[in-house]
Amino acid sequence: MKEIKNLLGYRESIKVVDATLRDGGLVNDFYFTDDFVKALYQANIDAGVDYMEMGYRASKKVFDETKFGKWKFCNDDHIREIVGDNDTNLKLAIMADIGRHDKNDFDQKANSPVDLVRVAAYIHQMPEAIDMVEDAAKKGYETSCNIMAISNSKEEEVKVALDMLGQTPVDCIYIVDSFGSIYPEQMTRIADMYLEFAAKYNKKVGIHAHDNQKLAFANTVEVCGCGVDWLDATYLSMGRGAGNCAMELLLGFLKNPKYDVRPVFKFLEEYMIPLKEQGIVWGYDLQYLMTGLFNQHPRAAIQFTKDQRKDLSNFYNEITSID
Amino acid sequence: MKEIKNLLGYRESIKVVDATLRDGGLVNDFYFTDDFVKALYQANIDAGVDYMEMGYRASKKVFDETKFGKWKFCNDDHIREIVGDNDTNLKLAIMADIGRHDKNDFDQKANSPVDLVRVAAYIHQMPEAIDMVEDAAKKGYETSCNIMAISNSKEEEVKVALDMLGQTPVDCIYIVDSFGSIYPEQMTRIADMYLEFAAKYNKKVGIHAHDNQKLAFANTVEVCGCGVDWLDATYLSMGRGAGNCAMELLLGFLKNPKYDVRPVFKFLEEYMIPLKEQGIVWGYDLQYLMTGLFNQHPRAAIQFTKDQRKDLSNFYNEITSID
Repeated sequence: MKEIKNLLGYRESIKVVDATLRDGGLVNDFYFTDDFVKALYQANIDAGVDYMEMGYRASKKVFDETKFGKWKFCNDDHIREIVGDNDTNLKLAIMADIGRHDKNDFDQKANSPVDLVRVAAYIHQMPEAIDMVEDAAKKGYETSCNIMAISNSKEEEVKVALDMLGQTPVDCIYIVDSFGSIYPEQMTRIADMYLEFAAKYNKKVGIHAHDNQKLAFANTVEVCGCGVDWLDATYLSMGRGAGNCAMELLLGFLKNPKYDVRPVFKFLEEYMIPLKEQGIVWGYDLQYLMTGLFNQHPRAAIQFTKDQRKDLSNFYNEITSID
Repeated sequence: MKEIKNLLGYRESIKVVDATLRDGGLVNDFYFTDDFVKALYQANIDAGVDYMEMGYRASKKVFDETKFGKWKFCNDDHIREIVGDNDTNLKLAIMADIGRHDKNDFDQKANSPVDLVRVAAYIHQMPEAIDMVEDAAKKGYETSCNIMAISNSKEEEVKVALDMLGQTPVDCIYIVDSFGSIYPEQMTRIADMYLEFAAKYNKKVGIHAHDNQKLAFANTVEVCGCGVDWLDATYLSMGRGAGNCAMELLLGFLKNPKYDVRPVFKFLEEYMIPLKEQGIVWGYDLQYLMTGLFNQHPRAAIQFTKDQRKDLSNFYNEITSID
C-alpha cells in the first residue's frame, strides 16, 4: 500500500502538463482562435500549471497546411503572438510526432520561446525518436519521449525501449495509455517498470492517459502515488476520442499550494463549455468504452461518433469481429 | 501491490448488484414504466447480474404516494407483476431507508419474491438499522447494511459501527462513498478496515460508489482487488447526482464467464439512452465534481443542475463559502 503521505502531502517534483491544444486539437483540427489560446495560457498561469503544450510542430511536407489550424504546425512566431517573451513560470512545450515532423523546423532553444520538445513515437520508431531527442537536446531544449500504444507491445520490447531512452539526454519518459485500456492495477506494474529504468538513468517518468474507461484521472493518481512526476491533463478532458485526464480533477486532487483549481472552472465556463455548445464532440462515451475494453485504437469509435450512430449493439459486434 | 491473479482470474464470491431502479429512481422520482423494468430485469438475467434492486420500500406514512412512481414503495405485488415467480438465478433486493421505512411492510420471506433486504443508515442510526436487519433476517431474508456518508465520520465511529454490525445476522456490510469524495488510495485503507471486521465476524463487504470525481468504477475495481465482494453498479451510471459505477464498465472488467457485457449495451441503446433523450439528467458533471472535491452532499449541485445554471465560478464560490 502506498504511503498516506503521498496523498496528504505533496512532492515538489510533480509537474502538471496542459495538453489541451495538442490532444484537444485532434478533435477540432487545431482550429483554436487566438482569443481561446490566450485565455488558456492565462488560465494555466493562474492555476499554477507547469507546462503548456502549444500544439504539434508537424511537417508541412506531410500535412496540407490549408486543412488544419495553425496549432498543428505551430512555429515560434505563432507562439510569440500569444505569449510574447513568456516572462512567467509557465514553460512551453511542443510535440514532434515521429515520422511526421522535420527536425530542421526546430531552431536553437536560445532563439525560441519553446522550453520542452515532446517526442511521440511508436515503439518500432525508437531509433528515429532518439535521433530527435538528441537533436533537440543538443539545441538546448528539455525533452520528453512518449512511447505510444504500449498496451499492444510486449513487456520485453518496452524494456528495451526504456533502456535505449535511458542512454539519451531525454529528461522524462512517458507512460502512454493510447487506447484507454489499462486498469489501475496494471498501471502500477507499468509505472514500477518505468521507474526502475528512470532510477538507473536519472530520468523522470510521466503519464498521458485516455478516458475510454473513465480511468484517465484514476490512473494518473495511481501512478503519481508510485512516483510518476509529470502528469498530463486537458481542460474538460478535451482530447482525441474519449479525451484525457481532466485538469479540473487533477488540480483538485494535487495538494501543492502552487496549484489552484478555481481559475480552471472559470476557463471551463467561459471557453470550454462554449466549445462543446458549438458542437465539437469529445469525451467518455460508450463507443470509446468498447474500443478501450478491447484494447483497440479508437478510430472506429471516432467514426461512429462522427456518423452520429446510435446502434451500440451493432458497433459491439463490428469491433469484436475484427481480428 | 495486489496479486495479478485478482485481475486475470476471478473470484466466485463476487456478486454484482444492479441498483438502477433504486439509485436511478432518485433522478426520475421512480417513474419507471413496467416495460422499462421488465427489460431491465431481462438484461440483468442475460448479463449474469447476481442481484437486482427493485427500489425502495418506503413508508407511505413518510412519503406522499401520489408524488412518486411505485418503485419508491415497491411491495411484493409490484415486484410479482414484473418477475412472476422469478424462476431465475437473479436474486431480488429492496432497500429500507432507516427512518423512512416501516418494518411491518415486510412479510415473511416465504411469502415474498424478495431475497435480500438492503438497509441504509447514517452512522448515528445504527441501533435502528440493526433492529431492521434483525427483523428481516428473522423473517428469512438475506440482509445487507450500508453505512452512509462515512467520509464525514470519524474512523473510530466507523469501527464501532462495524463491530456492532458484525454481531448481527447481516450478510454484507457496504462501504458507501455517498459524496463521491474518496480517492482510490483512501478506499484501499477503508476496505482493509471493513475486511478486518468482516473476517472476524464472517461477513461479506460491498461497495456503493458515486461518480463525482469519475472514480466510481476505479474505486470499485480498487476495493474488489482488496477482497470486497458485493459490487453495486447502475446502467449508464444512473443514480443521484453524478451517478454510480457503470454496469457496462464493471461487467467489461469482471472476468467470470457468467458475466456478459453484450446484453448491457443492447439495454443501454434501447432503454437508457432514450431516458436521457427524454431529458432526464444525471451523471458526472462539473458541479458534482466540486461537491465531491469538497466532501459535500450533492444537493447544491443537484439544484444547480435543475436550475440549468452555467455559472460554475459563482457555484464554486457558493459551495466553498459554506461552513
